[in-house]
Amino acid sequence: MASTVDAIYEDLIKRVKEVSVLGSCAGVLGWDEQTYMPKGGAAHRAEQHALLAGLIHERIVDPAIEALLNRVEDTEFVAEAHSVAAVNVREIRREYDRMVKLPRSLVEELARVTTLAQQAWREAREKSDFEHFRPHLEKVLELKRQEAAALNTGGTAYDTLLDEYEMGETTENLTRVFSVLRDELVELVGAIQDSGRHSDVSILQREYPVADQEAFGKAAAEQIGFNFGAGRLDETVHPFCSGLGPGDTRITTRYDPHFFSQAFFGILHEAGHGLYAQGLNTEHYGTPMGDAVSLGIHESQSRMWENFVGRGQAFWDHFFPKAQKAFPDALRDVSQDDFYRAMNHVELSFIRVEADEATYNLHILLRFEMEQALIDGDLPAADVPGVWNETFEKYFGLQVPDDAQGCLQDIHWSFGGIGYFPTYTLGNLYAAQFFEQAREDLGDLDAQFARGEFSPLRDWLTEKIYRQGMRYPPGKLAEMITGRPLSHVPLVDHLKARFGPLYGIHA
Amino acid sequence: MASTVDAIYEDLIKRVKEVSVLGSCAGVLGWDEQTYMPKGGAAHRAEQHALLAGLIHERIVDPAIEALLNRVEDTEFVAEAHSVAAVNVREIRREYDRMVKLPRSLVEELARVTTLAQQAWREAREKSDFEHFRPHLEKVLELKRQEAAALNTGGTAYDTLLDEYEMGETTENLTRVFSVLRDELVELVGAIQDSGRHSDVSILQREYPVADQEAFGKAAAEQIGFNFGAGRLDETVHPFCSGLGPGDTRITTRYDPHFFSQAFFGILHEAGHGLYAQGLNTEHYGTPMGDAVSLGIHESQSRMWENFVGRGQAFWDHFFPKAQKAFPDALRDVSQDDFYRAMNHVELSFIRVEADEATYNLHILLRFEMEQALIDGDLPAADVPGVWNETFEKYFGLQVPDDAQGCLQDIHWSFGGIGYFPTYTLGNLYAAQFFEQAREDLGDLDAQFARGEFSPLRDWLTEKIYRQGMRYPPGKLAEMITGRPLSHVPLVDHLKARFGPLYGIHA
Repeated sequence: MASTVDAIYEDLIKRVKEVSVLGSCAGVLGWDEQTYMPKGGAAHRAEQHALLAGLIHERIVDPAIEALLNRVEDTEFVAEAHSVAAVNVREIRREYDRMVKLPRSLVEELARVTTLAQQAWREAREKSDFEHFRPHLEKVLELKRQEAAALNTGGTAYDTLLDEYEMGETTENLTRVFSVLRDELVELVGAIQDSGRHSDVSILQREYPVADQEAFGKAAAEQIGFNFGAGRLDETVHPFCSGLGPGDTRITTRYDPHFFSQAFFGILHEAGHGLYAQGLNTEHYGTPMGDAVSLGIHESQSRMWENFVGRGQAFWDHFFPKAQKAFPDALRDVSQDDFYRAMNHVELSFIRVEADEATYNLHILLRFEMEQALIDGDLPAADVPGVWNETFEKYFGLQVPDDAQGCLQDIHWSFGGIGYFPTYTLGNLYAAQFFEQAREDLGDLDAQFARGEFSPLRDWLTEKIYRQGMRYPPGKLAEMITGRPLSHVPLVDHLKARFGPLYGIHA
Repeated sequence: MASTVDAIYEDLIKRVKEVSVLGSCAGVLGWDEQTYMPKGGAAHRAEQHALLAGLIHERIVDPAIEALLNRVEDTEFVAEAHSVAAVNVREIRREYDRMVKLPRSLVEELARVTTLAQQAWREAREKSDFEHFRPHLEKVLELKRQEAAALNTGGTAYDTLLDEYEMGETTENLTRVFSVLRDELVELVGAIQDSGRHSDVSILQREYPVADQEAFGKAAAEQIGFNFGAGRLDETVHPFCSGLGPGDTRITTRYDPHFFSQAFFGILHEAGHGLYAQGLNTEHYGTPMGDAVSLGIHESQSRMWENFVGRGQAFWDHFFPKAQKAFPDALRDVSQDDFYRAMNHVELSFIRVEADEATYNLHILLRFEMEQALIDGDLPAADVPGVWNETFEKYFGLQVPDDAQGCLQDIHWSFGGIGYFPTYTLGNLYAAQFFEQAREDLGDLDAQFARGEFSPLRDWLTEKIYRQGMRYPPGKLAEMITGRPLSHVPLVDHLKARFGPLYGIHA
């Protein structure tokens, strides 16, 4: 009997892996359209994505999958709750139950519409012309509403969409944690502004030749552990990391020859995602046990390497001499301390991905509110620029000069990523919890970083997170590793510890 | 009744288009692995290709396709022999009958094995290490033998494989035409060597900065009509052109900063393929009427723009002043005439893709003979380097220094392209026939080229070839356009007209 269930399970896994391989083909196409696809290719690419999405959907909701699930569930084979088999069966069932509610036509149409919408967004952003993007956004929103209605997890439409990125997370829980976080951030940023201290950020705005930035960024990514034999770095309008399968993880960044931080911290950020992708258990490739658990946990990795590690003093104890060698003209007369202060300069500004650690989450809170209204239908797409600018001024005290620096800055809504933004703040919160725990477990992390040793932290993350796949839901995983549920406290502590000394603020 | 057949035909076309879209996804993956895929991604890429090849096969041999074919064939709807519907139905039937003979497992295995073999070939070529490639070549040959046995078109195994690239062409016919061609070429090359005249090729071996080569090559490709809004140019080990679908045609080249011809004529060559791909009738995308007719005809386009146009005096009447501006250091003191002589220098050499027009086809003849022996099993893979070097010395009077410059120079055998090489010589022969006819139809082509006008020729090719899709078999198409069957005469005439004056040879 056991051997029969074995065989059923193997059949199930084979089918699910095939779906993953097909999904990874769509992944290559997605990477390509962000990096190298000529503009003229967008319409055909939309057809390719629609077809692949349809084939994938057809395979996931294949009645044979359900028949196999029925025969393996509730058997001895999956009795051990967090065994590989039990986790895979549980998550395949979850995905089956979710996808079977979605009509194939909707899945195909979403793939088609979002491919074209991304292309339109790129053009609109380039020309700072929201009207060029508006009809696409309207279509995306309409389809996402249909998706939420079909999937309906029991809460609001937004809850349903959120669950896709962060299993088990709710608008209510996030609103609660984010609201305390906001109060703390507003207070901290206010104190920083009142401190009257200003770092000389012009240090970072000198001439940093792009080729040197690329070489320096790649060397740093390599040293924290990103494997370029199984990955690469390219330039895109919007930086991202794409795990295309075992042995192929690609990150991107964007360069400004007169701004060091944009590309460098972008590379560290995406390399953080890349470490997660490269650290997955390839033995379980294509199954839930070989997949990342959630976007929030994924983002905790990018944030950790970008901010907790990369913007810390110890990191630059090791890298600053190298930076001086790489950029002699820009950094010859600069001290490490001034460089450190410049990169941790806090200032309310327009662009989310360029924001400092203290103000970053305020950008997310704005989007979190707006996209709830967008999906509920309370905010028509046409009003997005006006409401964005108004809300931004209220929160940031700044007048948005144009939509490229306002509501068109991010790619997410164009690919249908409604409910995606809050996972960024979740990532910051989880990163703080994990980093606090890693400090406890691994001894003097700063001394290790100063020696250029990043493998102890990386190995710890690999064991605790990357190799766990989807064994536990993200909230539970974080709680198991850190011993506490989602909390604003470690992040606020981290920010105070970093910015207190820099701006002479005492708790 | 007519409307029923209409609907059946529409259903058939819809299914066939879907297969083409799926094939174009594999096309993107193929382009990616030649350009940007990290080495570590090869194994997973092989799985992706195997899966896509299997899905494509499954769809082509779907019994529903045959049922639809049965209901539309021999009806009034396809009575007009070369109407769009009749051509599509004829070719879909041909493809169905072919593919249904191939087991899906063989198709998948071929996709898997050739993906890995290409990667191994790249590494082997880099290290000039044939042994690294040998086991892959053996596997490829074994699978191609199985493929030929399954498809069996009635002639030899090689005939069967040839038919895949050049419908209706036979080893016998090619052997006959190639053998006369060889005699003529040997005589011409002998006369050139005996002439004692030498061009100063060092002109082309000066410093040509890669970025300037790229800009100059792109400008030239654009001027002959390649649309970069629907295409791009990248760098690869082996140059190629990939039509990924409407609006997306990509060409590649390789650069040597100390050799002008390699990248430039490579770009013209691939842009010639690109014009064909961009000139296809997008209305018929994904069906035989919107597809290129054969590799030989495709190659006639690349050869025409590279050699017949690009290595002619008139082309440089227009482009030489531009070249002098683009490469002032290299070309300031060079006359157009010396530049022209240098680029048309004839010399027996090792690398096929760098060979001049007079010796090029000798490279093909060597491969044509060897691959027949390889597929027949008369030549074991292990003996390839020895036999290659021996034959090469016999034909070229040169000792091959290493396998990278010998049997490892070409990618074709690694992707299973046995029977592919002769289409290159076919392309030269067809190009000569077409060009001769175009001169007759279009008046003074040279005067047009000298003014930088390439659209009359391009429009002529578009109408006569590109928009015809697969309406006629390639041999018939060429005969209809030029009024004569495949012949060595126009090519030999062209070569004599070009090299006679340059080397003071009189017929």
